[in-house]
Amino acid sequence: MSTIINRQQIDEMEQRYRASFINSLGGFKSTLLVGTRSASGQENLAIFSSFFHLGANPPLFGLVVRPDVSRRHTLENIIETGYFTLNQITPDFVDAAHHTSARYPDDISEFEATGLHPEYLENFQAPSVVESVVKWGCAFRERHDMSINGTTIIVGEILWVVVPNELIGEDGFIDLEAAQTVTCSGLDRYHTTKHITRLPYAKPISK
Amino acid sequence: MSTIINRQQIDEMEQRYRASFINSLGGFKSTLLVGTRSASGQENLAIFSSFFHLGANPPLFGLVVRPDVSRRHTLENIIETGYFTLNQITPDFVDAAHHTSARYPDDISEFEATGLHPEYLENFQAPSVVESVVKWGCAFRERHDMSINGTTIIVGEILWVVVPNELIGEDGFIDLEAAQTVTCSGLDRYHTTKHITRLPYAKPISK
Repeated sequence: MSTIINRQQIDEMEQRYRASFINSLGGFKSTLLVGTRSASGQENLAIFSSFFHLGANPPLFGLVVRPDVSRRHTLENIIETGYFTLNQITPDFVDAAHHTSARYPDDISEFEATGLHPEYLENFQAPSVVESVVKWGCAFRERHDMSINGTTIIVGEILWVVVPNELIGEDGFIDLEAAQTVTCSGLDRYHTTKHITRLPYAKPISK
Repeated sequence: MSTIINRQQIDEMEQRYRASFINSLGGFKSTLLVGTRSASGQENLAIFSSFFHLGANPPLFGLVVRPDVSRRHTLENIIETGYFTLNQITPDFVDAAHHTSARYPDDISEFEATGLHPEYLENFQAPSVVESVVKWGCAFRERHDMSINGTTIIVGEILWVVVPNELIGEDGFIDLEAAQTVTCSGLDRYHTTKHITRLPYAKPISK
């Protein structure tokens, strides 16, 4: 049975209950590891589930950064150095990826803490994740502070991409499902996917 | 084998190939039907894959609207009337949902054209989709025009939610997978999901 949950009922939910409810409502999300290095050389790795596509030419995307402490280093490093990497996650290291969100002492990198390995492809300034098979390097382009709730949207531009050749279709489509890339829902659920259909470019239905 | 695809190679890709490549790279996306009605009473339904969570208290989200013609009515109606609905998609009507993106004559509603049914819950100004089991009503809050590429980010606030009681967990989590909610990748691939793990709130790993 479905009932309508109105706004007053949402506002009266217990805080963590509401966070889980609203966060899971919106649907499945891309979940990525963001790799950065501070100007002083400290590496940082953080899991984000707020990536969104903005355009392909030039290749642009957005990333929502919440004003909480555990994400602060990532935001600082992106703005300070101008560069970061995004790394897709597979089931073999989803536990380690999730644990990057724990609070470690400031002098401990999440790479060290979780056992994931950094690499510097093409002498890029920010570390990517060895364990990740699909990953890309990004430049910081714009920052939009959302006065409505204190979140920040980072706009990034894609500079290079690493993807196994066999995942790339003739039409350019990258088959992330074949690589077992995970998606997440809510705050802490991870899923793989099962392809149901590919639909052609939509034309009006004849009646 | 993986090779690094650099920015020059991305820029030199054929346009549709690049759109598919960059759009699929970012990972799995929430895909939703946006229901609106113009001030003159014309109903509109359009599929979007650019929803992102902004916060739970108050419940806020973003939606990227591209400057193309087929999405123009949705953006106009949202701004003109201030209200819209978001509706999750299941495999039984994914074809109809996808076909809302075709160009129909201006006086034909996508509800009529695709066979999906509008309903007006709680006398809400915008139609929701009868076939959708998880859906919510929204108010327009902010518009951010992204000068970097001409896209628009709509910030919306959630006013009411319809979700079957049996999908809501004790912690507030909505089990969209149990409802067979679809996720999409790239421009035209739809998937269901398979749960792999739920991980507890991350604490530092003891070494």
